[in-house]
Amino acid sequence: MKFCSHCGSPHLELRVPDGDTLPRSVCADCGTIHYQNPKIVVGCLPEWEDRVLLCKRAIEPRYGLWTLPAGFLENGETIIAGALRETLEEAHARVEPGDLYTIISLPQINQVYMMFRARLSDLNFGPGTESLEVRLFAEEDIPWEAIAFRTITRTLRNFFLDRKLGSFPVRVSSLERRPPLPPDLLAAG
Amino acid sequence: MKFCSHCGSPHLELRVPDGDTLPRSVCADCGTIHYQNPKIVVGCLPEWEDRVLLCKRAIEPRYGLWTLPAGFLENGETIIAGALRETLEEAHARVEPGDLYTIISLPQINQVYMMFRARLSDLNFGPGTESLEVRLFAEEDIPWEAIAFRTITRTLRNFFLDRKLGSFPVRVSSLERRPPLPPDLLAAG
Repeated sequence: MKFCSHCGSPHLELRVPDGDTLPRSVCADCGTIHYQNPKIVVGCLPEWEDRVLLCKRAIEPRYGLWTLPAGFLENGETIIAGALRETLEEAHARVEPGDLYTIISLPQINQVYMMFRARLSDLNFGPGTESLEVRLFAEEDIPWEAIAFRTITRTLRNFFLDRKLGSFPVRVSSLERRPPLPPDLLAAG
Repeated sequence: MKFCSHCGSPHLELRVPDGDTLPRSVCADCGTIHYQNPKIVVGCLPEWEDRVLLCKRAIEPRYGLWTLPAGFLENGETIIAGALRETLEEAHARVEPGDLYTIISLPQINQVYMMFRARLSDLNFGPGTESLEVRLFAEEDIPWEAIAFRTITRTLRNFFLDRKLGSFPVRVSSLERRPPLPPDLLAAG
């Protein structure tokens, strides 16, 4: 943000407004305070018998890696409506929504993931414009080394574990930034 | 938004960008797409023995009505950290956080509430700058007619019901806009 979206002034200051506790981008000319807040990513973990549906990304970031259908919640949507829309858009897949399953805070990138379990209604799925390929994977075939995001890896790992245990409690967690490699490991290439 | 926050241009158009499905505010001069997404409200339902803590609002909207401590999740926060911060700010209350409890989509105002159960650590609470008063209420004393938000009413009603039932499943729901009163009720005042 370089200009005030309310008055067009370039005089934005980063300061703590009166009565607030955190620095905000404040317009020095019109006084508008520009708040910025985390975004919600909603998606589904679609099942068909013992397999789960994954999408190979056709867009950056993580082009060519596998993910669950998910994306930013839009204004005017409930979280379940957003999850179903993303599943339809990215995988052309219709599902019966199940329970909310994982909620993962990503404070470093200002996102909160909210993933639902879901059952595929039929096998008429296929890649949307943001996917190169959509496929069903059994647990032993999951391409763990080629999953696009740690949120998705965690959701899938939780799922296969909980499936063995026979219940799917809501799992609330967070992912902090990956710690930097120690110097000796970095030197080792 | 009247001006592009990237280049300061007043030439914003509402249109569907290439490859997108929804209208966005797009700058006709620099091409920046200004996305707007729902915000997350996080808070706690603090318990002390059989009572719950409520705050009387010192700010608009709903000045003078009662609420649970809650507010917008900030960038850089996990949802539980945000819930604890709001509880400290609004009620000067320290709590032991419990499980995530209600998740309520408010699509008409582009918010998602996420409320945690919590246990007050001590009785050293009191009004923060956004509260007139902070008090513990037993179920029979809850001022149901003076609760600030429907999300809070729903969370409290779920809580007292689930407490009788002895378990607190995560409750995911949505609140659509209140339907308008039918003409005969409107006429009746």
